[in-house]
Amino acid sequence: MSLDLKSLIRTIPDYPKKGILFRDITTLIEHPEGFRQSVEAIAAAHRGIGITHVAGIEARGFIFGAGVAIAMGVGFIPIRKKGKLPGQTLGQNYALEYGVDTIEIHADVLDAGDRVLLVDDLIATGGTALAAVSLIRRTGATIEHAGFVIDLVDLPGGQRLRDQGIALTSLVEFEGH
Amino acid sequence: MSLDLKSLIRTIPDYPKKGILFRDITTLIEHPEGFRQSVEAIAAAHRGIGITHVAGIEARGFIFGAGVAIAMGVGFIPIRKKGKLPGQTLGQNYALEYGVDTIEIHADVLDAGDRVLLVDDLIATGGTALAAVSLIRRTGATIEHAGFVIDLVDLPGGQRLRDQGIALTSLVEFEGH
Repeated sequence: MSLDLKSLIRTIPDYPKKGILFRDITTLIEHPEGFRQSVEAIAAAHRGIGITHVAGIEARGFIFGAGVAIAMGVGFIPIRKKGKLPGQTLGQNYALEYGVDTIEIHADVLDAGDRVLLVDDLIATGGTALAAVSLIRRTGATIEHAGFVIDLVDLPGGQRLRDQGIALTSLVEFEGH
Repeated sequence: MSLDLKSLIRTIPDYPKKGILFRDITTLIEHPEGFRQSVEAIAAAHRGIGITHVAGIEARGFIFGAGVAIAMGVGFIPIRKKGKLPGQTLGQNYALEYGVDTIEIHADVLDAGDRVLLVDDLIATGGTALAAVSLIRRTGATIEHAGFVIDLVDLPGGQRLRDQGIALTSLVEFEGH
């Protein structure tokens, strides 16, 4: 039976700061069927289109991305915060509310024939996701699909990804943030 | 066919500092069958013993732990670095080579009837794993099993966990570190 995934996501007001409604996926993933159905829904939307790898963004994207990779039978590529990957890396800056952060991917991990599905828990402004798309393209691989558990639809991340030629799958939409 | 998982783990010398042989699991998880067999081997070793949740330690433990939770059909509990979990938390300090770090678990996430399997990529000195065991026990849940991809057998982590009543499964052993 299909669960109401949205009802399994807890909202924590004023976290990480006053006025923000934080959508907490830990209550979804502790629920065996909620976690399984989330992962399976993202996997099911991307079977049969030649996906060779799932890339997940540190840290919550590792949880869903690894599950989706296992469910699809493909390899998993971690996209990590600066300085965390031991091999030779490519890096990409992205803007935060105040300042800049950097994510990295192993430089030798993907080839021109690879087709990548990007997975993260949530799409909001799209800064991290767009940086991840850029990194994946710089390896020579193709990325045309991304899957998220939550889309904060009042924020522009979804549209910014579509403008980059990325087809978006999200399981739950929230207004307000 | 069963793969030689050890051959899929890349060793990077002098990372993160001179003299250290870093065992890099990114080459294992990018390999579809290597990742699947790693996760399935840890899951298979813990079926039929009443495990209700897999707990994974940020960040590489999320990759394997989420996969094992999906393979076992149980919920996933993230154990995170300080300040990353949005709900009410329990915290546990552990010693680093220089200084102290803290990991946290959501305080309300487990109950007395729950039986937890701890999963991480690697067991070395055991500092983080023992802190995680302590956190899980403080929630009231039972933990008697832990699964790791790699055991650095020259280091005391495995024995320290066994001394705490934890049965250990590891897939690959390395000497030298």
